[in-house]
Amino acid sequence: MKLLSTLSSALVASVICANAADLIQEAKDYGLAPLPKDQKGIDLILKENQIKASKFSEQKAELGKKLYFEPRLSKSGLISCNTCHNLGLGGADGISAAVGHKWTANPHHLNSPTVYNSVLNSAQFWDGRAGTLADQAKGPIEAEPEMATPAKLAVEKISSLPEYVQEFQKIYGKEGVTFDNIADAIANFERTLITPSKFDKFLEGDKNALTKEEQAGLKTFLDKGCATCHNGVNLGGTMQAFEVANKYKFANLGDFKGDANGMVKTPTLRNVAETAPYFHNGAIWSLTEAIKEMGSIQLGIEISDTEAKSIEKFLHTLTGEKPVITYPQLPVSTEKTPKPEL
Amino acid sequence: MKLLSTLSSALVASVICANAADLIQEAKDYGLAPLPKDQKGIDLILKENQIKASKFSEQKAELGKKLYFEPRLSKSGLISCNTCHNLGLGGADGISAAVGHKWTANPHHLNSPTVYNSVLNSAQFWDGRAGTLADQAKGPIEAEPEMATPAKLAVEKISSLPEYVQEFQKIYGKEGVTFDNIADAIANFERTLITPSKFDKFLEGDKNALTKEEQAGLKTFLDKGCATCHNGVNLGGTMQAFEVANKYKFANLGDFKGDANGMVKTPTLRNVAETAPYFHNGAIWSLTEAIKEMGSIQLGIEISDTEAKSIEKFLHTLTGEKPVITYPQLPVSTEKTPKPEL
Repeated sequence: MKLLSTLSSALVASVICANAADLIQEAKDYGLAPLPKDQKGIDLILKENQIKASKFSEQKAELGKKLYFEPRLSKSGLISCNTCHNLGLGGADGISAAVGHKWTANPHHLNSPTVYNSVLNSAQFWDGRAGTLADQAKGPIEAEPEMATPAKLAVEKISSLPEYVQEFQKIYGKEGVTFDNIADAIANFERTLITPSKFDKFLEGDKNALTKEEQAGLKTFLDKGCATCHNGVNLGGTMQAFEVANKYKFANLGDFKGDANGMVKTPTLRNVAETAPYFHNGAIWSLTEAIKEMGSIQLGIEISDTEAKSIEKFLHTLTGEKPVITYPQLPVSTEKTPKPEL
Repeated sequence: MKLLSTLSSALVASVICANAADLIQEAKDYGLAPLPKDQKGIDLILKENQIKASKFSEQKAELGKKLYFEPRLSKSGLISCNTCHNLGLGGADGISAAVGHKWTANPHHLNSPTVYNSVLNSAQFWDGRAGTLADQAKGPIEAEPEMATPAKLAVEKISSLPEYVQEFQKIYGKEGVTFDNIADAIANFERTLITPSKFDKFLEGDKNALTKEEQAGLKTFLDKGCATCHNGVNLGGTMQAFEVANKYKFANLGDFKGDANGMVKTPTLRNVAETAPYFHNGAIWSLTEAIKEMGSIQLGIEISDTEAKSIEKFLHTLTGEKPVITYPQLPVSTEKTPKPEL
């Protein structure tokens, strides 16, 4: 009896393994790929995506970390990149539409996407208007309903803080503090925000990294066609047509219509279990519901509750390990520092 | 010639040392004292100040750190303790009057005091209405112009996050998540925010910890009478009468009049060089100016520019080393988590 049970366990295990190998291959065929292991790996992906970025350096990333947490980059002195892309909250803010300077909601009711792994997106912003993280970083700093700091004021503020000036000169030479360099440093920090998960281990060949249920979820995810748009290393991050098969239930919330061709950036699914609410307008709070809605409007299929729950199990495997961030000590304001404007 | 120079250097050094020893004694006579080295030392000071606090534990402090950075403790989900008491900005926010929920300024135009070393204050809030850090922590969470979260909602929010619930039960037993325990955990974290500086080394007997100029600044500080109110281990933190000798220049800014007896909490001078703007209403941005104004209204004396600059040199020695804080990963919201209200 014991022998039989052992034999049967071994049989089940070998079937799972065979299936797992097929499943890994199938996922790869859909373009899913494990996260790069280092900055060189990120460079390769940027090259594939034809994205230009300055050469990465730890020094830039360390400076960029300060700037990422720097509320004085906002006009009020209260809002930093981390306010809407909170590194403790999956890299997002957990509210439907971003709120910024003077408590102004995003005029198009757009939801803040996660900053984690964002370097791996082939486009930034929901309408994909920025190609690089550095270009993206400038947007919210200057936007009136976000940090409301014109480029000139941002440079004036950072230039009033001698520690920053020295650090910029050390890194960027004579150029020193410029708006481009501020954005470049932030982008370099954001390049370090990579979150490997057990799904990466699975793709790398560790067949036991995902449970049977999670593997079944991945299979459903692939079979239903989710990976048509949620593909590549970031399971998203590329521009895709929206409302392909049906109208989106909450299309009336916000006036966002995508880019000039109606294309919208597919959000990454990495850490998706941590970044409710969902969609460009943050209209849906439940992941199950979001999965079903996507099935309907993008794929024109009905995803059952059971299937959605199964896919959800897989999506949870994309919750990655976050880099350990030491909260930065910021340079002390001087009498030259432009005063906060509230 | 060389011998003469050596002899003369030795002579100068011994005179400085003798002076330094006297100066240390004088500072101690005024009640100035070095920071406690550990939590037991903090317990002793709390006992001296007749302040009750729950028994400190690292577990409580670790939980409290998460809650300190937890924006979901605010009604909007956007404001945490760290928004106004930013650990990267000297433990304060660098704006005149605190701004909170719906971009509401503090109705009395009150400035956010530093959280660093605040456990050593004998009273909390500008009017001293809270005796303990735990009591203080409840205020801003509930206050409508700050985090705007009634106690019941705060408990509901934290109770909706299973990781928190487990941690609270482990620490506080059956009681688990209560508003008192939330505040207690935050207070325990704040007990770790102690910032030893070279002034502490000096008080501990390291005569070379302060330069001649900084020692001269301390002497001026003592001679002018600043330590009458800015005394004790925190160089402040006790209730004192305000406008003792003269009217405060910016008394019209905000309507704050202190407690029922017109007493106001003297702010700590530790890290004061990092926490402009100054005074309860944040009306003065320059430390030199703040020193002169205090001389006038509290001591009824004129402090010259030279004297103010000298005192300022001393005050810079109170900028302490900040504890290294790893930015916390916060528990993931669940479908039970009350939605942010903006």
